[in-house]
Amino acid sequence: MVCTNGKKVLQLSDCQAVYTSCLYQLRYLTGIEPENGCAIVDENGVTLYTDMRYMEAAEKLLAGTDVTPVLYKQDELLKRLAAYGSVGISFDQTTHSEYLALEKAGVKMKNIDGAYERAMSVKSEWELQNIAKACQIAEDAFNALLPEIKEGMTETEVAALLEYKMRALGAQGLSFDTIVAFGAHAAVPHHETGSTKLQFGDEILIDFGCKVNGYCSDITRTFLFGDDGKHEAFKKAYAHVLAAHNLAQEKIVSGMTGKQADAIARDYLKESGYGELFTHSLGHGIGLNVHEKPSVSPKGEQILCDHMVFSDEPGVYQAGEYGIRIEDTVTLENGKIKSFMGRTQKELLIL
Amino acid sequence: MVCTNGKKVLQLSDCQAVYTSCLYQLRYLTGIEPENGCAIVDENGVTLYTDMRYMEAAEKLLAGTDVTPVLYKQDELLKRLAAYGSVGISFDQTTHSEYLALEKAGVKMKNIDGAYERAMSVKSEWELQNIAKACQIAEDAFNALLPEIKEGMTETEVAALLEYKMRALGAQGLSFDTIVAFGAHAAVPHHETGSTKLQFGDEILIDFGCKVNGYCSDITRTFLFGDDGKHEAFKKAYAHVLAAHNLAQEKIVSGMTGKQADAIARDYLKESGYGELFTHSLGHGIGLNVHEKPSVSPKGEQILCDHMVFSDEPGVYQAGEYGIRIEDTVTLENGKIKSFMGRTQKELLIL
Repeated sequence: MVCTNGKKVLQLSDCQAVYTSCLYQLRYLTGIEPENGCAIVDENGVTLYTDMRYMEAAEKLLAGTDVTPVLYKQDELLKRLAAYGSVGISFDQTTHSEYLALEKAGVKMKNIDGAYERAMSVKSEWELQNIAKACQIAEDAFNALLPEIKEGMTETEVAALLEYKMRALGAQGLSFDTIVAFGAHAAVPHHETGSTKLQFGDEILIDFGCKVNGYCSDITRTFLFGDDGKHEAFKKAYAHVLAAHNLAQEKIVSGMTGKQADAIARDYLKESGYGELFTHSLGHGIGLNVHEKPSVSPKGEQILCDHMVFSDEPGVYQAGEYGIRIEDTVTLENGKIKSFMGRTQKELLIL
Repeated sequence: MVCTNGKKVLQLSDCQAVYTSCLYQLRYLTGIEPENGCAIVDENGVTLYTDMRYMEAAEKLLAGTDVTPVLYKQDELLKRLAAYGSVGISFDQTTHSEYLALEKAGVKMKNIDGAYERAMSVKSEWELQNIAKACQIAEDAFNALLPEIKEGMTETEVAALLEYKMRALGAQGLSFDTIVAFGAHAAVPHHETGSTKLQFGDEILIDFGCKVNGYCSDITRTFLFGDDGKHEAFKKAYAHVLAAHNLAQEKIVSGMTGKQADAIARDYLKESGYGELFTHSLGHGIGLNVHEKPSVSPKGEQILCDHMVFSDEPGVYQAGEYGIRIEDTVTLENGKIKSFMGRTQKELLIL
């Protein structure tokens, strides 16, 4: 259970207190995210405000932590907030309506989006464990899915089956809507999973992930459903995407910027003649949000350091023909990349 | 496909233009919700701003509607917004960060939360069709689930199986995290589905729903997994909850307030001796959000009218013993209630 995140954000915020009603920030500060809840962190600890419906569960889950659940009463909450010399809130995650209500109550607010980003981008041991578990479930579900993929299944059916397997293995939810793309659909990086039926010889791209205690996994695998002998260009490109993916894991080290990390895969693909077809970033941070800091892109100025978690996902897309993306969720440990993946095949798989 | 929602909100807003970047409002105004998109409505129609990744799909989906997709460029967007005499935005769905950015660009904003609520609470024919389809999928999935429920399954396994069935029947996602509660867990209205195993004689409460084109269904069924002869109090209460549920559908008419509608079921349960155990509202509006206007509660001042969609869900909860909730998604048509449900059993089911 989380105990130190509240303290971490408070210190970075440079405020007397931190306040949030945003679900993922609540989860970060308290370890749980009751609907309609909010939290205050100050030097005495974390107070979680919630309603009767969640009180019993909150008391049970938070026993032994520095988080105290209390019943939400708006006037008491506002009075307490107004008494602080400064209250840090996230302008990115606070609605303008709530901002106005806090302002009207005399709360002296300061934007602490930067504090959340800095705190959340470096994971604790407990957070890393949850991400590792979410990655394990995703890979195990994928391996269980493979033998059940049959000709004539739709993209949606394959997605539903994979999601069911993740859920049955203990996932609490999805990191995002599963992307299943057959054939040339794979050339669209954000293809909307649909009713297209699988045919012999199709390539299959699956981008998916699940959540454990709120923490996400994110993984993409690309493979062939039988080999109809028409995949020469695909196979050549696949080998280069995999090489770029592996090169990134080999060469990214703590202390680099996201931009330098991105360049490892990007430069390789450029030299291999695929530069124009690699149309997105190498990676993005992963945690309670499936897209968060650090940015591992040509614009990534943040320095990568130990216990950050991000994706390594080079991709090559030839419109109307094929799309290839190979993605692991990885972290930095003792200065080097450690992938959370390792249970699924990355050498080209032909079903 | 939606064509008139943008016009409807614009008229109710009393502004020269309406702007949003909120996903469900985007879906409402344009019919689709590309990640990172935003939209402007003015007298000339709706403009959807999106990035390259979604452009092709948007053009295809929006052909023949009054929505024009264009590539997002921040400075052009802000310049256009600043030129209007007044721009309606939802203060409840705009982050304070975005508000500040718009303000800095000289955009003259007005809060139009009320306009969205009024527009969205009364559904178009197309919206009603989507909700009907989402309800049908939910009920069909439930019926397909029943014969597969076995002793020893966990709450999570039952939830995963039901979700899989909804997905396989064409649901695009869940309305909310499925609640499956075995035995006394059902007494907690927002029980967190867990690893408890099903035993002979347990009651089972399942609260679930799915989405079709963004529109939600919401349904709860309570039943017994075998009858161990210890359910006398449960059965008596069940009959009263069902009577309250049916009475509401019989007596609610267009022109009533949400409060008057709520009182139909509440008064009945009070007279039957269950008043204290009915701890929540009779219902809530359902649409692109699973909880929206109108409120069908003791505080519901809004007048119910034709083509509103809401839940009819009386419940009785005896802590530590049992919980019963029977919920349909319903609408008002020609002044009377019409339920979207009717394919599942509501008389007490004993598996």
